[in-house]
Amino acid sequence: METQQPIPDSLITRVVERVTGEVRSGLLRSTERLPSEREYASLLKVSRNTVTAAYSELEQQGIIRRFRGKGAFVCALPAASESFSWSGKVSSMANSLDEPVLELLARRLGTTNVLYPLSAGTPSLEIFPTDVYRASVERVMRESLPSALAVAHTEGQWKLREAVASWCGVEPQHVMITAGAQESIDLLARCLIEPGDYVVVDSPTYPGAIQSFRSAGARLLPWGTDWSLSQLEELLLRFRPKFLFTMPTFQNPTGRVMSLKTRVGLLELANRYRVPVLEDDVYGRTYFGAHRMPECLYKLDKHSQVISLSTFSKMFAPGLRIGWLVAPQYMVKQLSLIKMRSNLFTGGLNQLVLAELLRSGDMDRHLAVLRHHHAELCAAAVEALQPAVDAGLIRCRVPTGGLYLWCKLLHPVDPDEFFALLESHGLHVAPGIAFEPERNAGKASQHFRLCFTAASRSLVAKGVELLTRLLGEQRALAKSAQDGSIS
Amino acid sequence: METQQPIPDSLITRVVERVTGEVRSGLLRSTERLPSEREYASLLKVSRNTVTAAYSELEQQGIIRRFRGKGAFVCALPAASESFSWSGKVSSMANSLDEPVLELLARRLGTTNVLYPLSAGTPSLEIFPTDVYRASVERVMRESLPSALAVAHTEGQWKLREAVASWCGVEPQHVMITAGAQESIDLLARCLIEPGDYVVVDSPTYPGAIQSFRSAGARLLPWGTDWSLSQLEELLLRFRPKFLFTMPTFQNPTGRVMSLKTRVGLLELANRYRVPVLEDDVYGRTYFGAHRMPECLYKLDKHSQVISLSTFSKMFAPGLRIGWLVAPQYMVKQLSLIKMRSNLFTGGLNQLVLAELLRSGDMDRHLAVLRHHHAELCAAAVEALQPAVDAGLIRCRVPTGGLYLWCKLLHPVDPDEFFALLESHGLHVAPGIAFEPERNAGKASQHFRLCFTAASRSLVAKGVELLTRLLGEQRALAKSAQDGSIS
Repeated sequence: METQQPIPDSLITRVVERVTGEVRSGLLRSTERLPSEREYASLLKVSRNTVTAAYSELEQQGIIRRFRGKGAFVCALPAASESFSWSGKVSSMANSLDEPVLELLARRLGTTNVLYPLSAGTPSLEIFPTDVYRASVERVMRESLPSALAVAHTEGQWKLREAVASWCGVEPQHVMITAGAQESIDLLARCLIEPGDYVVVDSPTYPGAIQSFRSAGARLLPWGTDWSLSQLEELLLRFRPKFLFTMPTFQNPTGRVMSLKTRVGLLELANRYRVPVLEDDVYGRTYFGAHRMPECLYKLDKHSQVISLSTFSKMFAPGLRIGWLVAPQYMVKQLSLIKMRSNLFTGGLNQLVLAELLRSGDMDRHLAVLRHHHAELCAAAVEALQPAVDAGLIRCRVPTGGLYLWCKLLHPVDPDEFFALLESHGLHVAPGIAFEPERNAGKASQHFRLCFTAASRSLVAKGVELLTRLLGEQRALAKSAQDGSIS
Repeated sequence: METQQPIPDSLITRVVERVTGEVRSGLLRSTERLPSEREYASLLKVSRNTVTAAYSELEQQGIIRRFRGKGAFVCALPAASESFSWSGKVSSMANSLDEPVLELLARRLGTTNVLYPLSAGTPSLEIFPTDVYRASVERVMRESLPSALAVAHTEGQWKLREAVASWCGVEPQHVMITAGAQESIDLLARCLIEPGDYVVVDSPTYPGAIQSFRSAGARLLPWGTDWSLSQLEELLLRFRPKFLFTMPTFQNPTGRVMSLKTRVGLLELANRYRVPVLEDDVYGRTYFGAHRMPECLYKLDKHSQVISLSTFSKMFAPGLRIGWLVAPQYMVKQLSLIKMRSNLFTGGLNQLVLAELLRSGDMDRHLAVLRHHHAELCAAAVEALQPAVDAGLIRCRVPTGGLYLWCKLLHPVDPDEFFALLESHGLHVAPGIAFEPERNAGKASQHFRLCFTAASRSLVAKGVELLTRLLGEQRALAKSAQDGSIS
């Protein structure tokens, strides 16, 4: 029980000055909680009423604030002098982003000021059917502009869902429209991955998938692109991964195609171990010549265990930002809830245009032209590279579809030096390190990916000739250095 | 030391049968790890060699698999009979999504089959400048189609960043283009929020922000839209929030405008407590009449502590999916890294069209028409509601801009019954519960938001007349029920 005698002002002032001094000196910091009145009284050996009076005085001076039942807090001083630092506000997830690789990707996206842009994964645009596209845009604006302007369903414009469904031989309610394959992958990562989950991915694989899975907290299990089912079962048994992400047709970056037998075996394992399969099929329609590839996993699957994703970016134009995925209706709903939070819905104009191009057969006609053209570009690139292959400086597998040559530099070419040399000549390729699901602490990969469709035919040929010549120079340099060290 | 005597086959067979039986009965489950050979030998009181031989036999039969140094695992049995369940694969984040509210939002996005769609937040499209837009699309396709088709920078088309910057009086490198305000909010949530962080938000506020912040793991601190600085300082002191998200101009849903004095005070507090401010300014340009509102927080800020976001969705057309944010360059870079992972970049066509409309002055001319038209729509809605206001059944503040009336149902109208009645008449409004940052366990809010720009003028007037009539019927019903209980 406190006494009710009057408290000398000097005592109160001493407490006030003590707190003020501690705030000024930084001993008590902004937003820090002060001791309770009872604790402080006992610490200073004064009555509790003295502390109460001092705290009131401090609050009137704006130095502290008290909240009933919560305690007293030190206010921040006006006009803090240091400049504001945003970097301290960034979350650990954002900080964990693999900046070097993402910046490398960013460079792929900004291909201006590059003489030979053979890095970005874009289909040939020199044969883009400009007139067909423009006519379709104009028709959509005449006939369906309100649908393109208004708010729309997150799952996509129904017309495009129907058109894609009939094009792919599936039901429209299983089709969800996205802003491209990267969005499909990121939505799947956000929907399925619990931090700490294991995820099986092809090794090497698409850098955008590595980034999305990692930043959702996944630990990646690399599955070599010889696609051994025995290795896959080992991964499934030992790690119980959350899902398997694979690109069975014209795998990015290797260009490989998974055999029908392996596809069937993969699905059998996935079914036995109850593991969902995410099939990245963005290159499935970019085969050269007339022969189709083995059926996609989605079609082979009998247990609704596969989600397949694709995009118009690799067969028409990446700037339209329209892709799709095919999934069980339950997953279309789950993914839509996440997309709604991410960007509500995807713009309508290009969706309606693509629906028309699919229905009219214009997309199929374009694909026939594209396949022929891509085959020629690939042949031109391979031919220009041949001298370096013959000289044993580089190795690459000639693909039967897709947009890439996956090349391996051989001894004595030093990858770091060579990539720097290419950059200095304005020639961009995608270094192999970006495609590795395991973090290799900056160890340069001997591989790189060359996109033979990202520029005009003459530019691709000239670029690969330059690359071949620079390889020869590197060899000569390495040789003379070696001779020098021997002599 | 094990003996080297031959092991009787019957012993091995007994071990094999025991394991096989336990797998069949489910005692040992698929992917489960078996005891080590040593442990199992000691458990069964047989030699270790017996167990080794039995495990070999089991592996040959495909029942288990052994990995050097990792142990032996039970393989899954072929042809598991239950159907595949995706729901068990969904992450806890995805499961924590607030489905009822998101589905409510989803319904807003699909406004077909609704007689009076007064729920979605869309500007009037009946005065959309169709000819101007079409001409601009056609010009961009003639003059800059390659830029619209190719891969592009994540930060946005430079032409649009420049045009927005000059329109807003900022530097282009501080402008980032996004797929609308929802994307800006979600990128900021992913960039800044650490699970468990506190975030201050207006209360009530935009449902999309609530969803994005919550699913990034934030705990929301509601700041009443009387915007008391004393309450704000209390929240800053007691919870040290990660940031403050506010909509100072034509706040959604209340339509309120924060005074200049409060804006200055808010910034002073934010500076003292080193708290970033995210300003949602999507309605800032939608004032009625000629008078501009107080300067936005971004312009008033002297410490680079504010990120401001806006969109063309509320002043032009939501279907274009183009918004922007203004931020320090460091944050533009961080947010771009996240957007790159989310969807690489936003489509070029509408970006280039909007750049042209901003530069030509067409956007400003459209805004002048829009402001006048929205003011008329608002007046028509308020007039149609007047009888219910006079009868004391409903209360609403008449706004000076924005797209909404924020209405409060008064006694004796029962909110749940009334919303159900509206739905049954094909009239959609947005129930207040969606705007509440605190989870109120299904307690119906007495508020609802009515968008007076989401339909044609005659439809808005008819819709609000219907609403007023239904309010009267509700009152009569409530009254007769009361009379009944008295008599």
